[in-house]
Amino acid sequence: MAPQGQPAAVPEDGLTTRQRRNRPLLVVHTGEMKGKSTAAFGLALRAWNQGWPIGVFQFVKSAKWKVGEETALRTLGESGAGGTVTWHKMGEGWSWTRKSGTDDDHAANAQEGWAQVQRDLTTETYRFYVLDEFTYPMKWGWVDIDDVVQTLRDRPGHQHVVITGRDADPRLVEAADLVVQMTKVKHPMDQGQKGQRGIEW
Amino acid sequence: MAPQGQPAAVPEDGLTTRQRRNRPLLVVHTGEMKGKSTAAFGLALRAWNQGWPIGVFQFVKSAKWKVGEETALRTLGESGAGGTVTWHKMGEGWSWTRKSGTDDDHAANAQEGWAQVQRDLTTETYRFYVLDEFTYPMKWGWVDIDDVVQTLRDRPGHQHVVITGRDADPRLVEAADLVVQMTKVKHPMDQGQKGQRGIEW
Repeated sequence: MAPQGQPAAVPEDGLTTRQRRNRPLLVVHTGEMKGKSTAAFGLALRAWNQGWPIGVFQFVKSAKWKVGEETALRTLGESGAGGTVTWHKMGEGWSWTRKSGTDDDHAANAQEGWAQVQRDLTTETYRFYVLDEFTYPMKWGWVDIDDVVQTLRDRPGHQHVVITGRDADPRLVEAADLVVQMTKVKHPMDQGQKGQRGIEW
Repeated sequence: MAPQGQPAAVPEDGLTTRQRRNRPLLVVHTGEMKGKSTAAFGLALRAWNQGWPIGVFQFVKSAKWKVGEETALRTLGESGAGGTVTWHKMGEGWSWTRKSGTDDDHAANAQEGWAQVQRDLTTETYRFYVLDEFTYPMKWGWVDIDDVVQTLRDRPGHQHVVITGRDADPRLVEAADLVVQMTKVKHPMDQGQKGQRGIEW
């Protein structure tokens, strides 16, 4: 229950348990089912409580969805009781470019977002990153997967990165420390039910 | 990507789409992997943003784990910008009994927690419930599964309930509207890494 258990194996990597424990993690939430982003934002609550600066990059246009998480995390960031929260949304024009959301070149927008993530990783702007729905620009060939993997492998300091989205590339899974697959057992839409507020957004 | 899609089937239940959409949901997050509770607390962010009163019942003793989520959700509840958050923990003596956490009769504690959930459901105290790790008292026979299923089926009003934990009973899955299974693809403990702050708690 509590994941307090002993590790299944002790690796011969020359690291102490403390060094191993404090390694920055690359986490991937994938699978067909909802919960991928939701769990990533849930993880962000822990990061916030540690006082870590949090950077969220939403890689998919979405006006309505995730407004609850965004409002909540922004409220937490502004509370001063934990870490800061910076929220970037592709759909409205990335916040650092200050362009309005009229640019329909999704590939260019995604590349711009990834370039900013690279800059932030280099300068260690955040301690905890949510790259939400970032598997899609990789899947669609807009962002080079090998570039992503190498950038993440080489990132300095102690920066945790969580990537969400379906169909995570095997190279990303290989590079990740923690991969969770969200699998559908049952969904209300199968019974003809549509999404509803407070649950889906 | 955005789960905005059409339902797979339109049921012959005599309900309009709106009626069907606004049905209260029973959600179960199960499976071996982390993310079950995290995604439930992520969902709570949406409920909070809707202004809904949220009741969290932690059914497993845990001092350290989930302190990040608890602090974050309490901070949100106190911000006044969204719904209220009431957090009950079995490990410290349920908050309504005001007993200290010295009672080691876990079965009695779990039953007491479930009795309170039943009272709250009857009086519609909350609009969104997280019954965290509640599958375990069911699994261990401390709480009667048929009683749980019937209580949830008969609950009045529009109360969403999210239950987390491994090994959800088939009767619970049958009664649920939405069931997500968190499956392990890869875990750092397999490589000898222990949990770390900001990620595991």
